Amino acid sequence: MPQAVAGPEIERLIQLLARMPGLGPRSARRAALQLIKKRDTLLGPLADAMRVAAERIVVCHACGNVDTSDPCTICRDAARDPSTLVVVEDVSDLWALERSGAVQARYHVLGGVLSALDGVRPEHLNIASLVERASDPAVKEIILALNATVDGQTTAHYVTESIRRLDLKVTRLAHGVPVGGELDYLDEGTLMAAIRSRTAF
Amino acid sequence: MPQAVAGPEIERLIQLLARMPGLGPRSARRAALQLIKKRDTLLGPLADAMRVAAERIVVCHACGNVDTSDPCTICRDAARDPSTLVVVEDVSDLWALERSGAVQARYHVLGGVLSALDGVRPEHLNIASLVERASDPAVKEIILALNATVDGQTTAHYVTESIRRLDLKVTRLAHGVPVGGELDYLDEGTLMAAIRSRTAF
Ligand SMILES: [Zn+2]
Ligand SMILES: [Zn+2]
Repeated sequence: MPQAVAGPEIERLIQLLARMPGLGPRSARRAALQLIKKRDTLLGPLADAMRVAAERIVVCHACGNVDTSDPCTICRDAARDPSTLVVVEDVSDLWALERSGAVQARYHVLGGVLSALDGVRPEHLNIASLVERASDPAVKEIILALNATVDGQTTAHYVTESIRRLDLKVTRLAHGVPVGGELDYLDEGTLMAAIRSRTAF
Repeated sequence: MPQAVAGPEIERLIQLLARMPGLGPRSARRAALQLIKKRDTLLGPLADAMRVAAERIVVCHACGNVDTSDPCTICRDAARDPSTLVVVEDVSDLWALERSGAVQARYHVLGGVLSALDGVRPEHLNIASLVERASDPAVKEIILALNATVDGQTTAHYVTESIRRLDLKVTRLAHGVPVGGELDYLDEGTLMAAIRSRTAF
């Protein structure tokens, strides 16, 4: 346990920053100092933005997106194609697809992928709610926009089996997605091509 | 300008996170999502810690340290050796030295180093206030704990000239500090050795 040298308020800030993804203890100290130096232009506004986010952001009970309303803005958007559901692993993948502008449909966030190694089983994912949504007669196509990883493809097969009796068109992203790659790291053009060239599954 | 896909509250959080040192736009999105997922255990507490820091942290008018009191905890610590001032470039260096436990004296934060390239001149640094503090008859030694960079050593020479008439013992850190290295990246043991082997300057 290193000696606390900066007073309890700063030490607490450093400790919490160190728990953010991408920051370790050392970079957390540097970040804290930079934030303190930019107190009025960055630290204060960031505190406010985090407070607003902590108080107002909810998970959409329909699709699993995060937003300040439930149902979320996307679920409430009447201009979206009601016949298509895009199944994603995580909200970050939903964001990546929205940024690409490749599809104007609604999403279903599974909240992960099946993984024997990590003990993630079907009941841990939002699969039952997907089957329920997919049972709506308005839904004609399910696009499986899952990562091109072993677990992602295992999950795609499981989801396909789960909705087979509904007799829907089930597609997956074209092989523009690099093998082993993760959606969130791809550029908009690649995602656009992968949506356009989606293939029957 | 990428399309805003996550609602104005989340987009604002992402934008501000992207301005933190060590985070870019993409990692800021991932960080925002992780924070939202850990709303109660991380996002809320971090918002509070930043708010407390933004409201309570001040710069010590005596030494340039950051703390919730002015004078800071170190300046008010009667147990510290009053005969020695440790001159550092930045608060992060003060923290690094405090973590090492190598010295129990007070500090003077210059707030940077002289740099012709960056247009940093003596009047931009806390040198006049250092000369004033060093004029106190209780002060016997100035330890120049500046980075072993060209600018750091230029600054060390300038500070030495500025206080020459005061006839103090002026020392610098021993050459345990790697040439070109920065204090903030060193381990406690190296800093300890460097303080113990400090040489006349
Ligand atoms: Zn939704
Ligand atoms: Zn002080």
